Amino acid sequence: MAPPTALDVQTTSDTQIATFSDKFSVNGVAARRSNEPRISGGVAAHASSEMFKGPGYGKPKAKRWDHRLTLESLARKPSSLKGAQKYLSNPEVEGLISLGGGLPSSQYFPFQNIDIKVPVPPHFSEQEVKESGIVKRTGKHDIAEGKSIYDIHVALNYGQSTGSAQILRFVTEHTEIVHNPPYKDWQCSMTVGSTSALDMAYRMFCTRGEYMLTEEYTFSTAAETVRPMGVKCIGVKMDEQGLLPSDLDSILSNWNSAARNGAHKPWLLYTVPSGQNPTGATQSKQRREEIYRMAQKHDIYILEDEPYYFLQMQPYTGPNAPDVPPPSSHSAFIDALVPSLLSMDIDGRVMRMDSFSKVIAPGVRVGWITASEQIIERFVRHSEVSTQNPSGTSQLLMFKLLEETWGHAGYLDWLIYIRLEYTKRRDNICYACEKYLPREVASWNPPMAGMFHWMKIDWQKYPSKEGKSMLEIEDEIFHAAIDKGTLTSKGSWFRAETDNPGNDMFFRTTFAAAPPDQVGQAIERFGSALRAVFRLEEPGNGHVEEARDGHVEEASNGLAKEGADGHVQ
Amino acid sequence: MAPPTALDVQTTSDTQIATFSDKFSVNGVAARRSNEPRISGGVAAHASSEMFKGPGYGKPKAKRWDHRLTLESLARKPSSLKGAQKYLSNPEVEGLISLGGGLPSSQYFPFQNIDIKVPVPPHFSEQEVKESGIVKRTGKHDIAEGKSIYDIHVALNYGQSTGSAQILRFVTEHTEIVHNPPYKDWQCSMTVGSTSALDMAYRMFCTRGEYMLTEEYTFSTAAETVRPMGVKCIGVKMDEQGLLPSDLDSILSNWNSAARNGAHKPWLLYTVPSGQNPTGATQSKQRREEIYRMAQKHDIYILEDEPYYFLQMQPYTGPNAPDVPPPSSHSAFIDALVPSLLSMDIDGRVMRMDSFSKVIAPGVRVGWITASEQIIERFVRHSEVSTQNPSGTSQLLMFKLLEETWGHAGYLDWLIYIRLEYTKRRDNICYACEKYLPREVASWNPPMAGMFHWMKIDWQKYPSKEGKSMLEIEDEIFHAAIDKGTLTSKGSWFRAETDNPGNDMFFRTTFAAAPPDQVGQAIERFGSALRAVFRLEEPGNGHVEEARDGHVEEASNGLAKEGADGHVQ
Repeated sequence: MAPPTALDVQTTSDTQIATFSDKFSVNGVAARRSNEPRISGGVAAHASSEMFKGPGYGKPKAKRWDHRLTLESLARKPSSLKGAQKYLSNPEVEGLISLGGGLPSSQYFPFQNIDIKVPVPPHFSEQEVKESGIVKRTGKHDIAEGKSIYDIHVALNYGQSTGSAQILRFVTEHTEIVHNPPYKDWQCSMTVGSTSALDMAYRMFCTRGEYMLTEEYTFSTAAETVRPMGVKCIGVKMDEQGLLPSDLDSILSNWNSAARNGAHKPWLLYTVPSGQNPTGATQSKQRREEIYRMAQKHDIYILEDEPYYFLQMQPYTGPNAPDVPPPSSHSAFIDALVPSLLSMDIDGRVMRMDSFSKVIAPGVRVGWITASEQIIERFVRHSEVSTQNPSGTSQLLMFKLLEETWGHAGYLDWLIYIRLEYTKRRDNICYACEKYLPREVASWNPPMAGMFHWMKIDWQKYPSKEGKSMLEIEDEIFHAAIDKGTLTSKGSWFRAETDNPGNDMFFRTTFAAAPPDQVGQAIERFGSALRAVFRLEEPGNGHVEEARDGHVEEASNGLAKEGADGHVQ
Repeated sequence: MAPPTALDVQTTSDTQIATFSDKFSVNGVAARRSNEPRISGGVAAHASSEMFKGPGYGKPKAKRWDHRLTLESLARKPSSLKGAQKYLSNPEVEGLISLGGGLPSSQYFPFQNIDIKVPVPPHFSEQEVKESGIVKRTGKHDIAEGKSIYDIHVALNYGQSTGSAQILRFVTEHTEIVHNPPYKDWQCSMTVGSTSALDMAYRMFCTRGEYMLTEEYTFSTAAETVRPMGVKCIGVKMDEQGLLPSDLDSILSNWNSAARNGAHKPWLLYTVPSGQNPTGATQSKQRREEIYRMAQKHDIYILEDEPYYFLQMQPYTGPNAPDVPPPSSHSAFIDALVPSLLSMDIDGRVMRMDSFSKVIAPGVRVGWITASEQIIERFVRHSEVSTQNPSGTSQLLMFKLLEETWGHAGYLDWLIYIRLEYTKRRDNICYACEKYLPREVASWNPPMAGMFHWMKIDWQKYPSKEGKSMLEIEDEIFHAAIDKGTLTSKGSWFRAETDNPGNDMFFRTTFAAAPPDQVGQAIERFGSALRAVFRLEEPGNGHVEEARDGHVEEASNGLAKEGADGHVQ
């Protein structure tokens, strides 16, 4: 039996929704839909966010980025075959039969129905889904039979690179509800995940021999994707709020092309503003505004990678203070989120990458980007000769869940549920760190978002006679922790500049996957490893042996106790 | 009610299977499995074809391709984070708790069950699935509950770029049953579809300013993907069996770098050997052997794109001769297929791309490649920082269908069913062409594989006084056909060399998607358009008007009649 969550007592009643009465609210979107054209039930039907957005009265148009696009991206042309499809929607040619495209017949798709059992808001826990989840069925010909606007016959055939209209509509509306981009010609396109979207973005923006900007410690895949393309990363210094606009300014104002083999001053910034990987840092609203102003000053284009945006958690109050009450309504929830760079992007200089990986499931391999019409068009030109379109199976499941079961209100309920669950997990690891890590050498900030806890190790306190380098000491700690039974990630793995290890030492841990009781145990082992490496005394008597039997003492806080009671798989 | 198919009387009895007793047969694979290690039930578990292949006794190792890989591909390194995962499978560290990787917990995947209703061999038609299909359920924790070796908890989390072991095993075995590559260190990797695999292959093999080889008329996406990378296509001349080895030899033997801005002699060949898009040409066994020998002579690496391999059809006998009986067994079916280039690849110089798009459904966006260990390793290094892994939803559905419902024998039954269905569709369009097209200007070969019917138009017979160019006449025919109500594809769209229109005119039609009765109608309209453009007399009186009412006269052959009776959606 799952423990009750704060959401059980939170309802999404009409009164609450009514307090969020902006035209880009959940209700506003619902009202607007009644005026929209019907979604085509055809195979590979064209779709664009323009069909689903609210009116952009008074908003400026995005800037053009021709001067930033690569030769490869500029050279992409629309497919001649897809161009021929325009005749199929030409009203002058009634009864046109297409022998043009090589689409297989859905007659030979060997799936008759796909049923999923999913939770009904607000009963989201695994146990509740078993008890009260509902089954949503998709048939092969639901559209023709009038049962749905999406079915196997469409989802499992070829599709457009923007994604199916059925799911593109949902993410477009969701983006408007949450971010309401302040320029007129923004659009969304579905992706096969942000890792692929980032690879495509690099091909749109990065040229061999040039540099790009990232956080000093950055998502290692983001750097490992671009380096083989002959592009180097310049790391911007960070504090607990992530990258420092002053250092960004300094790097760019003092750029010396001659000293960089003629490379131009960089103008592409990759950033993870919320719950940054690996540091867990979250940029405040003010920090984001400063970064955006600096982007304007130096004409930077920003890749905003935000898988953890909805893993922004409740404020951390520590083990001995009461928790902050959960958001009281959808609007209060959205207001509690730090505004995105997209939400302040009056120039259209941001490509935002959104992901379902951390809030639904990574295996669906469906995400979306939001950017200006020009950038989306170039992105789609690339996608259609590469990934083509996200898995139709996944798009179908996401549609059935988000559109037909939850709706926008239910999805926000789910995101609030996830927020509170991750708050518990974050609190659990912080309590464990406070209890088990030696403060003499370890320090950290409780993360406000994401999955990662980033610990600074004062390596200067290493018993110095052996004269080891920082990286050697890092390696010693890493292996000492493994010997004690805890696998962490070395901070040096995340350095943007591989030839510059920096002056500080960090370890990254994640509190997302392991069950909370194991997280406590693992942190205790890590503390023990640190004490061994730094020759510090173990606290108390016999404590560590006890912990290695798999027993974590109860923290003084109910949440941590709840997290450790084993109900998490 | 679906008409009976030849498969209804074909059984896959033990006696029939026993005749196919090679060690790489369906039965051989089943026997071998009993000696294999168990598939790990872990999240993102490592998988390799090496775990699932038969012993490669006596086979040579593949050649190395370091001299052919791009700077980008050579520079790719294994992910440092993925490298850390090796400690998790280290038996020396018992009870290791990983706080390393950023995997979300499946506790928060909002899918409890996924059920699919699928056909049981040999009852494959849509009607039969309704009546006798079975429901296969996947639960979230089926592995832990001992119900299956694959479940939602694994499939919907992050995975390896090779694909999940559960489905990789099936395609590895299938590849061995059908192709049995003649070198030792071949492997498979799942892809997110051949279009993406091709884009990745280009990045592994193609450098700006260089040339690559394709058929003279080629899959337009294949050319449109590579051109923006600054790589030009050289078209190799073709006959009814596809590309001509003699012309390949001539191009390469006479290559003049100086006349090509210093570009090296090309050494990458993209080819679609079976049911080539757009020409429908299928290379014979002898032709393939000649092409392979030429590849050896000039040290060519081959990208073998084979989406239509299993759309090889029964021999064409025409409307007035009896049909060829369907394959009598799985081995007879496999023997009736033209051997692949992979099956003759003793050097490991072929990357074969296989697809489920034409035989299961394009929307699953799951396919696989087969190549030597070196090439697969480089491909995986790229995938893991780009597409990451195919949709888990799709891998799960394919596993439930192919592995848990059909098995290898059932999948071959399905492929035989598809073969016979496409034979009917091919026959239908050929009968229509024979009936409705003006032989004075139109000629064609009945396709032996694929989805496309390629028609040559003798444009020299165009009433010449107007002095139009070939491309202008092609455009006139294209639009005349649209005006009559038929959309086709222009042959010129498929020219490998965009600045060289060639001397001949073609139109491509497909018989895969439109219902057979509409295909007949569309061909009749196209014939009418040709007659109008070339000022030829309409045959008979009033015939065309009749056809435009949507009524196609019955052909004299039962199959065509059957195909036109409307049971096709």
